[in-house]
Amino acid sequence: MGLDTAAAKPLERLSAALADDMVRVNAMIRDRMASRHAPRIPEISAHLIEAGGKRLRPMLTLATARMCGYVGDHHLRLAATVEFIHTATLLHDDVVDESDKRRGRPTANLLWDNKSSVLVGDYLFARSFQLMVETGSLRVLDILADAAATIAEGEVLQLSAASNLATTEDIYLQVIRGKTAALFSAATEVGGVIAGAPDDQVRALHVYGDALGIAFQIADDLLDYGGASDATGKNVGDDFRERKLTLPVIKAVMRADADERAFWVRVIEKGRQDDGDLDRALAIMARHGTMDAARADAMGWAATARDALTALPRSDLREILLDLADYVVARIA
Amino acid sequence: MGLDTAAAKPLERLSAALADDMVRVNAMIRDRMASRHAPRIPEISAHLIEAGGKRLRPMLTLATARMCGYVGDHHLRLAATVEFIHTATLLHDDVVDESDKRRGRPTANLLWDNKSSVLVGDYLFARSFQLMVETGSLRVLDILADAAATIAEGEVLQLSAASNLATTEDIYLQVIRGKTAALFSAATEVGGVIAGAPDDQVRALHVYGDALGIAFQIADDLLDYGGASDATGKNVGDDFRERKLTLPVIKAVMRADADERAFWVRVIEKGRQDDGDLDRALAIMARHGTMDAARADAMGWAATARDALTALPRSDLREILLDLADYVVARIA
Repeated sequence: MGLDTAAAKPLERLSAALADDMVRVNAMIRDRMASRHAPRIPEISAHLIEAGGKRLRPMLTLATARMCGYVGDHHLRLAATVEFIHTATLLHDDVVDESDKRRGRPTANLLWDNKSSVLVGDYLFARSFQLMVETGSLRVLDILADAAATIAEGEVLQLSAASNLATTEDIYLQVIRGKTAALFSAATEVGGVIAGAPDDQVRALHVYGDALGIAFQIADDLLDYGGASDATGKNVGDDFRERKLTLPVIKAVMRADADERAFWVRVIEKGRQDDGDLDRALAIMARHGTMDAARADAMGWAATARDALTALPRSDLREILLDLADYVVARIA
Repeated sequence: MGLDTAAAKPLERLSAALADDMVRVNAMIRDRMASRHAPRIPEISAHLIEAGGKRLRPMLTLATARMCGYVGDHHLRLAATVEFIHTATLLHDDVVDESDKRRGRPTANLLWDNKSSVLVGDYLFARSFQLMVETGSLRVLDILADAAATIAEGEVLQLSAASNLATTEDIYLQVIRGKTAALFSAATEVGGVIAGAPDDQVRALHVYGDALGIAFQIADDLLDYGGASDATGKNVGDDFRERKLTLPVIKAVMRADADERAFWVRVIEKGRQDDGDLDRALAIMARHGTMDAARADAMGWAATARDALTALPRSDLREILLDLADYVVARIA
């Protein structure tokens, strides 16, 4: 949700540029989430899919396919595929996180139950699989299968890395690739593949999506320690209270002296938090400049995303995607 | 588990006939459930996969591929695929059913947590997807994508049909296709497809797997009202106490007079059960002959399974599969 809000301007331009395609993708999504036999499925899916997500991921697929000159209609199937995978992971995440809110509304696991969230997530994943098979492209299937494995692996890793002070920046990167970047890069890459773009362009589209997703997630994690609540839909310090190890904290733990280390062990590993601990965490991170360092990392990934797009021919869509890379980090600049 | 125990004899012959292939499938399963990044994944998968399941589903794929003269090694990948899908659904089922035992051991959701069961299930599903893509057969992918959708749809349907006296035999059939038969029929069908068998044989293999799965599930549901505990690993009356509508009850509800209907409303819909209610349920079912009727249905499906195999050339493996169809219903004969 954070990204969707923050990137509203380039997203509005993307929406305008892809309006005709998106009408068809939305119709396909409604059609494919239907179930002849189990009416609870469209009920739950609609709760989430119609809840006003900005459809960034499917638009990435449509935009990259169009940028590469695609004129068929398989890009619509792939856009719907990507949105279904995204929705399936949200349903499962809400069970895993025991969340009660998503996009400002009660989560499906709260309105129905965990069982329905698990099974409807499985159903949407199966539907996405059917849609991608219809494109007849083994290369597309290969990319999406790898993305699915990276997503699931990243989620399990996040679970076992949770509150573990030994979490390194490498592990963090793997976790956010699973959480965000793997589906972004698959979304952009399959757009190029379905359009039959040359290998160097397909590779560039993968790098763009991957770097865009990483830049966004680092920015989102930074905002949790300083952004306004309305920018992310989260409150400052949520990650701290949930004892999540995000980049600015990981960097601070690595640079900690003995006193600071004892502090992190108490508040993150043991979870014994008192009033004033968030302020102390912020002060420690400021002392080591870890917010600035994480910000610089995010900017670096945004630059990587921009650079990658130079492999693609100039076009209006390319301009919008370039601006999108700037936009995801503009909110932490 | 019920099936694995009951079908031990033909399964032993299958195991012997496919021993070399199964060594390679088991090695592939161990290799592919590994995760470089998240060691919890193989830990949980191994808990379930190594727990002594009889590997019936992967053997169905190996057997049908071999019966159709296949000599490559993609059938090994498909056998591992089928086992991964099966394991993934077990992990998700245990979360949905809030189970605490599976194959006589504590379930993963009890030993670890629901989160891990959901996410490791997702990971195994993604791994199965990668394995099937490696076969390069779009037809295989199409079959398995449809099976995945039928499985998930059947599970959601089971959830919404639970304790609902309006559940018809058609809905029951749809539920058990999702629960059991869809993966059986996909397992047997992809064996034929990967071997390049003629269409009529592939179709026959699908019918065999579908009918075998349905016959088994009806038999299993019948045993719940009369089998010995050691035959199924369940206690008599478990489904009754859990207010599940299985075939003998559905048939009894359809034939109920006013008194009997009030009884079913109380014990199944409202779940208010007293001592002696299970005996009364058994007496009502006996009065209407619904156990016999369900038994006849199961026998009919087993015969359908046998008949289908006549489309395949005679072979030792065909004999074992014929016997397997008899065996799944022999325990209720």
